[in-house]
Amino acid sequence: AQSSITMFGVVDAGISYYANENTAGVTASQKAVSNSGYNASRFGFRGTEDLGGGLAASFWLEAPITNDDGQGILMFSRRSTVSISGGFGEIRAGRDYTPTFRNDVVFDPFFTAGVGANMLYLANHGFGKWLAGTPATGSTYVRSGNSVGYFLPPNLGGFYGQVMYSFNEREKFDPGTATPATLHTQRTGRYLGGRAGYANGPLDVAASYSSAIIGDDFYAGTTTAVKTWNLGASYDFGVAKLMGEYSSAKKSVDSARPWVSAPDNGLKGYLMGVTVPIGPGLIRASYSQVKYDQNQPSGSNAAKNPQAGKFALGYVHNLSKRTALYAAVARLSNKHGAALSVAGPAFAQGQEALPKTSTGYDFGIRHAF
Amino acid sequence: AQSSITMFGVVDAGISYYANENTAGVTASQKAVSNSGYNASRFGFRGTEDLGGGLAASFWLEAPITNDDGQGILMFSRRSTVSISGGFGEIRAGRDYTPTFRNDVVFDPFFTAGVGANMLYLANHGFGKWLAGTPATGSTYVRSGNSVGYFLPPNLGGFYGQVMYSFNEREKFDPGTATPATLHTQRTGRYLGGRAGYANGPLDVAASYSSAIIGDDFYAGTTTAVKTWNLGASYDFGVAKLMGEYSSAKKSVDSARPWVSAPDNGLKGYLMGVTVPIGPGLIRASYSQVKYDQNQPSGSNAAKNPQAGKFALGYVHNLSKRTALYAAVARLSNKHGAALSVAGPAFAQGQEALPKTSTGYDFGIRHAF
Amino acid sequence: AQSSITMFGVVDAGISYYANENTAGVTASQKAVSNSGYNASRFGFRGTEDLGGGLAASFWLEAPITNDDGQGILMFSRRSTVSISGGFGEIRAGRDYTPTFRNDVVFDPFFTAGVGANMLYLANHGFGKWLAGTPATGSTYVRSGNSVGYFLPPNLGGFYGQVMYSFNEREKFDPGTATPATLHTQRTGRYLGGRAGYANGPLDVAASYSSAIIGDDFYAGTTTAVKTWNLGASYDFGVAKLMGEYSSAKKSVDSARPWVSAPDNGLKGYLMGVTVPIGPGLIRASYSQVKYDQNQPSGSNAAKNPQAGKFALGYVHNLSKRTALYAAVARLSNKHGAALSVAGPAFAQGQEALPKTSTGYDFGIRHAF
Repeated sequence: AQSSITMFGVVDAGISYYANENTAGVTASQKAVSNSGYNASRFGFRGTEDLGGGLAASFWLEAPITNDDGQGILMFSRRSTVSISGGFGEIRAGRDYTPTFRNDVVFDPFFTAGVGANMLYLANHGFGKWLAGTPATGSTYVRSGNSVGYFLPPNLGGFYGQVMYSFNEREKFDPGTATPATLHTQRTGRYLGGRAGYANGPLDVAASYSSAIIGDDFYAGTTTAVKTWNLGASYDFGVAKLMGEYSSAKKSVDSARPWVSAPDNGLKGYLMGVTVPIGPGLIRASYSQVKYDQNQPSGSNAAKNPQAGKFALGYVHNLSKRTALYAAVARLSNKHGAALSVAGPAFAQGQEALPKTSTGYDFGIRHAF
Repeated sequence: AQSSITMFGVVDAGISYYANENTAGVTASQKAVSNSGYNASRFGFRGTEDLGGGLAASFWLEAPITNDDGQGILMFSRRSTVSISGGFGEIRAGRDYTPTFRNDVVFDPFFTAGVGANMLYLANHGFGKWLAGTPATGSTYVRSGNSVGYFLPPNLGGFYGQVMYSFNEREKFDPGTATPATLHTQRTGRYLGGRAGYANGPLDVAASYSSAIIGDDFYAGTTTAVKTWNLGASYDFGVAKLMGEYSSAKKSVDSARPWVSAPDNGLKGYLMGVTVPIGPGLIRASYSQVKYDQNQPSGSNAAKNPQAGKFALGYVHNLSKRTALYAAVARLSNKHGAALSVAGPAFAQGQEALPKTSTGYDFGIRHAF
Repeated sequence: AQSSITMFGVVDAGISYYANENTAGVTASQKAVSNSGYNASRFGFRGTEDLGGGLAASFWLEAPITNDDGQGILMFSRRSTVSISGGFGEIRAGRDYTPTFRNDVVFDPFFTAGVGANMLYLANHGFGKWLAGTPATGSTYVRSGNSVGYFLPPNLGGFYGQVMYSFNEREKFDPGTATPATLHTQRTGRYLGGRAGYANGPLDVAASYSSAIIGDDFYAGTTTAVKTWNLGASYDFGVAKLMGEYSSAKKSVDSARPWVSAPDNGLKGYLMGVTVPIGPGLIRASYSQVKYDQNQPSGSNAAKNPQAGKFALGYVHNLSKRTALYAAVARLSNKHGAALSVAGPAFAQGQEALPKTSTGYDFGIRHAF
């Protein structure tokens, strides 16, 4: 029961450049001192207490920091959890990463950070967002608050797994015989997901699935859910580590009235990556692509579904386990109305000025403590 | 003069349910992952420096945390003080608990936390609030910033005591012979209070008094003060610890013009509690009640004064000194227009839909570090 | 490569009084519990990692705290940097003090804190501010985010120096042949400055220069820059330490169209200070004065340029290296329309009510940890 608190963090700063160009050759660009180009800048506290009998209690409080400008308001929004763990595994409550997001980060050579962040991450972020009409605009794509999670114990011969359920905490209203005076949004925000995998020697493979409710309408009787599944794997050949992922997300409107039809929306994509260790350094490269399914009518006049792809290349030079210099460059291409960018300024003009290509680089230093 | 900084905190998470029902049977309910069900979640730093000659300097910086959703902005608003202490006692400056609030928390088996929080706490919070017309909406019921406090030394044979004065920091304006162009609110926010008690063996008894200015009107020449006193006691019989408190608050408008009459408002209440240790566990139970005095005219047609009561029952199972599992259930009843609830959603409708009963439970884990 | 994190901070609280009086004898005053009267209250983490070969990586995260009221939102806005240092000096990135500000603080007996803060600090703060029309209202007078800095190594026989460049991070827009639809503000926020000095034995002397862009107009083709230089020195005679500084800032509008004329604006001032150690105590005194150059036409009817001066006197009583009691009093006089004050309330009325004199005192305790 003795106290052991660990302070930890990452201070990652770099010089970044972003440029977006549309089909008319109009460009918007930005040069910046950036944070989190290699690893997300953060600051936190964690600790574990041995309760005896194989049981332990632990906590984890982690805040993002914007060390480039020092203007980020501190809150433990990266992770804030309390856990009980033992031979049965771990039960964890609070705000944490979702199981479905894990594959998008662990099988990306760029960990979804900086200009090299994979397209699955860039596209799913917006795809799983709920709208401003509901009490809070948000997304449970990366993390979810108000969650309870369960993790398998680590001694299962390489098998690992977790499930997570997040309460939407919406008000539930039973009007009795009265007509409700206001719209009650009661389901948006709920997340249910799980992930299972197997890691042994050079191999790591994992699949995950989730259903996240991102909208509902009390009067129309509809619920909008994003159902996501993905499958990722990596294999370390020693001279190089290969990794890949396939991801599919579908936005569907379930209606209590069967005659109400709302078309589904889809987002599919894949990621291929490689890392090559060279002495104290690491070369990183990836290609990732996403394609939206907007239920366009088939035929020769049909609008094409938007799609986008990105190639990223980087190098990390480790000065120590905690400190590294890094550089990365990425180029993203949009087709058929996709409007993703590596980062930086958006166009102020209308639809015709969507970025056709987006290019960027980061070079900087990551110091962990 | 050597440095000793202690990091400390509480991460308390649970599953909670709240349901409010009005006289027509309309209910509004909410299920949530909650924080602070047993002890308020927090995070802080404190330290003491021995200055020699019996003197010491110390600091205390403590922030609330919302570990359920990780969205709480960090600020040292629970306590932020610097002190000089010695044989004379302690002088403390900054933001701290008010003396009057101490009795409401130390004689409550539920420490004013979670659904079991006593009614004196629930009702006084709103009663002592000042209004939006003044530069800041606030209350000095629980804590006050801009305070200077004095504490008696601990070696007085069981007697203890403290006084606190909080500056309102309002602008003072001397217009000379001119007519002031704007309304100057100059007194709201001031708090003056004290507490004295005696703790010896199984007995602890304490009384407190405060006067807090919660409103004023420059032109009308009025000052609105809430004057509070309370008396609490606990006695530990070993098999059980009994505790109780009586509290009285009066809102009065003092006018510089004697012919201006503004009726006083009152809030009286009591709390009875018991805790029963059972091995590593603790049963907790309390009943508390408040009654507002709204100066209703007497007679058979008079409106009745609002009142509300709450019964709470809980159990705490200590896994260690730092980690505990807990459960609590509470039921609150309102009468004659009182509209208090254990927590959770408010009714969206009008006056007739005030909650008649409010029910809730918490079960969770408290981990201190 | 072992980890060493240092927690550090200052908790400084005092009682302060401020009174501003105009020519008609109207006064506005305030009494308050204040923070940062002697040293700015703060809270932070820093650490260094030895990378071998004379290289080191380090980080510094420091947040201001408002320990008087506990309401300040925590963010690492005082300093948030990551550095690589070695025989070549130090390269530092993030948010940090500007080189030009250093002289204003190190040659001020009051470190720009409390009522005694020198006039160069009070006046330059407003002079270097950019306006609300640009994406952010701000100033790079004291600190700048998004900066990269270089510091000379410490072993140069007493010579020291640094340069800093801050990215404005504005969007750069290349419209091609199209007419831009919106105003693009592209330069405001950039800072470039440097400082060089010599410290040996009792002598310390340093000069600094900077150019900070505080405004621009895309259509008019103008850029508004504040160019600042200052020279400060101190000499420690043992019985007393004398210090002084001269500072000059000029706001100039550079236009791409030579026929557009915008008059320059100036701010010049000086500071003289002395500290006298007396046992465990320190007497501090300073006189500082600023004069604005508003390009008034010459002649007998010309409006006079505003100017203001301040005399400050204080005493610090060190209880230990970390803990001190302090007192300070200051009186500021405005002439010809200057409207500076030691702190506290502004007048609500119009131009004629500008403060003619401003008086204040602080007494409190500074505890560092």
